[in-house]
Amino acid sequence: MGPGPISAYPSVLRSMSAPLVGQFDPYMTALMEETQELYRGVWSTRNDATLLVDGTSRAGIEAALVSLIRPGERVLVPVFGRFGHLLAEIAERAQAEVHTIETDWGQVFPVSVLEEAIARVRPTLLALVQGDTSTTMNQPLDEVGELCAKHGALFYTDATASLGGNPFEADAWGVDAATAGLQKCLGGPSGSSPLTLSERALGVIRSRRRIEAGIREDGDDSAPDFIRSNYFDLGQICDYWGPRRLNHHTEATSMLYAAHECARLLLQEGRDAVIARHRVAGEAMLEGVRGLGLGVFGDVAHKMSNVVAVEIPEMVHGDAVRASLLEDFGIEIGTSFGPLHGRVWRIGTMGHNAREDAVLQTLAALESALRSHGASVPNGDGVEAARAVFRGAAA
Amino acid sequence: MGPGPISAYPSVLRSMSAPLVGQFDPYMTALMEETQELYRGVWSTRNDATLLVDGTSRAGIEAALVSLIRPGERVLVPVFGRFGHLLAEIAERAQAEVHTIETDWGQVFPVSVLEEAIARVRPTLLALVQGDTSTTMNQPLDEVGELCAKHGALFYTDATASLGGNPFEADAWGVDAATAGLQKCLGGPSGSSPLTLSERALGVIRSRRRIEAGIREDGDDSAPDFIRSNYFDLGQICDYWGPRRLNHHTEATSMLYAAHECARLLLQEGRDAVIARHRVAGEAMLEGVRGLGLGVFGDVAHKMSNVVAVEIPEMVHGDAVRASLLEDFGIEIGTSFGPLHGRVWRIGTMGHNAREDAVLQTLAALESALRSHGASVPNGDGVEAARAVFRGAAA
Repeated sequence: MGPGPISAYPSVLRSMSAPLVGQFDPYMTALMEETQELYRGVWSTRNDATLLVDGTSRAGIEAALVSLIRPGERVLVPVFGRFGHLLAEIAERAQAEVHTIETDWGQVFPVSVLEEAIARVRPTLLALVQGDTSTTMNQPLDEVGELCAKHGALFYTDATASLGGNPFEADAWGVDAATAGLQKCLGGPSGSSPLTLSERALGVIRSRRRIEAGIREDGDDSAPDFIRSNYFDLGQICDYWGPRRLNHHTEATSMLYAAHECARLLLQEGRDAVIARHRVAGEAMLEGVRGLGLGVFGDVAHKMSNVVAVEIPEMVHGDAVRASLLEDFGIEIGTSFGPLHGRVWRIGTMGHNAREDAVLQTLAALESALRSHGASVPNGDGVEAARAVFRGAAA
Repeated sequence: MGPGPISAYPSVLRSMSAPLVGQFDPYMTALMEETQELYRGVWSTRNDATLLVDGTSRAGIEAALVSLIRPGERVLVPVFGRFGHLLAEIAERAQAEVHTIETDWGQVFPVSVLEEAIARVRPTLLALVQGDTSTTMNQPLDEVGELCAKHGALFYTDATASLGGNPFEADAWGVDAATAGLQKCLGGPSGSSPLTLSERALGVIRSRRRIEAGIREDGDDSAPDFIRSNYFDLGQICDYWGPRRLNHHTEATSMLYAAHECARLLLQEGRDAVIARHRVAGEAMLEGVRGLGLGVFGDVAHKMSNVVAVEIPEMVHGDAVRASLLEDFGIEIGTSFGPLHGRVWRIGTMGHNAREDAVLQTLAALESALRSHGASVPNGDGVEAARAVFRGAAA
């Protein structure tokens, strides 16, 4: 019940035990195409370039940034938590001229602040986290694509922590590039990064086209400003997933199975239904911890539905309570990074864990663990408050 | 039965269905340490920095090269197939000054040729494939480490196609960095790249140390020539696997389970026993295709034990025979790249597929498929020749 990685859906775990097939086997290429179509549904997009990067969520981030940013170009990163710093870090390593704006942890940016910064910096690319698990905040994105288009910037967003548990509309919001991971609301293991690119983003990548030595043929000219990573060259990755099927990496077959099953489950239940399930479970957890008399960090109106940052009460040692939960109850929760390390616990309700029994068990265990560590907590009020939310949702 | 990815060991497939745990869960960190120790056995090394890169085998290659090469440094790449070109490509993208020497496809380099080139180029790093699946050749490496040390070069090798099926002695051969994948002789899925680094290699990486924004603390100074990739920064990856457990990527848990099981199986059977099994199965396949009257490409004395390049007879269409094998018999074999595309079939005997029944089935099916495509082939001589090899090995 941490902020991710989480317990995967059982059928996702089972999917990875399926036999492997060769990378150009017709079954494999058909499954890759099917996976692309499923993720168009997950991202709410018609983007042709919708695929997986073979690595963890930050592999997807780096693939997007190194493919879209030429050295020296200006990149604007609004930072509202640890993962905004990560976007700035990756952009800096890609030799961008990085500009950041920051807001207090626990807050999101008003759109006017974003617009002012875009107009001032005039970036080639805006890189903005949607949900930053470090603070639990969920940055509103619905007006950002329009802003970027108006100012001639590409709009990239990292939806790792938020996708599947909160609304995401790639096309309607004018997103040019977005990446995620499986290990949060999609309910799978870390190790595969879904990614989608608009035609505009694809145009930038195509203009930097280079086919690698070893499979390059006559007429395959290399752009002078080719992408400085081979593994993360989205042009080559698109040629591998696309009809040309140019050899690049060897697709990670078992992770493809997992990614396929994550998306299939989400669309079978229904994107809106899954988001609603996360909203209810998240609300129940929020009311549950409040029922235990605990404070909640940050601007709750803007938090992701799938994770809550609980203020650690002064009378207990946060890590000792976490250890009790893990050792006595087999339930894992997280702490956070930087200024929030040791100040909050992060409790997730993501993917398979966005369930009533998981929420109630966690609250009952937390109540017991707090009491055994000497905290005075109301008797059963956490579970009861959560149960009321579920009852209300079912009514 | 292609050149990889191959059918995985059943217990490797099952291992990936195990429940996930959090990335700093004591079970997880203990499993990571256990995996490191297992891979020290696989690589034949005492290198502390023995770990997994979360991506396919070329992710491991890129991690090694971008972490070890500073822009402008000289890198020597002896090319004897498609994957030598890939090393040169990745080094070039890492902004190295890349020098290549080439030999004919189907040959390996005599050590004297390597020494002459090292003495002439004086590279910071020699990047040399061990087994190049495109040609099936297995470059002897046992004297290369000493040569590199004598000339002040680091020695990196890509053992993706060869590790587990052919001898590899990281410490005894003086290897500074080596990478592999699971999808060949280790008998697992693509998507995790075992990597090992000598103390000398680690020294270079430590000298480029940079801890990323977001988790950097006072005193964590950044080297001016820091690594230009975040995902592939082996310094950070070592800090994540090491006792400091600094947050970097979220370890791909299911792939870790698979990598752990691949190594556990190999060491349980015994490294030498597994290599011997590959040698016998490879010899049986070699004699089997010869028994069918087919030619074998390249310097057979130097081929990897686990793959054979079979010359496609003129009277048949190579891809049509491959399609028959797949559609009628459910057996997949490969063709090759570049100058060998359409000229050879590549038949693997790797990992779980290095078995007598797999070899005999493949030869029987190939005989039938060749005959149905109009080729005249001796009746049963392929299977019989292979069977004789297995009988001899068991005697």
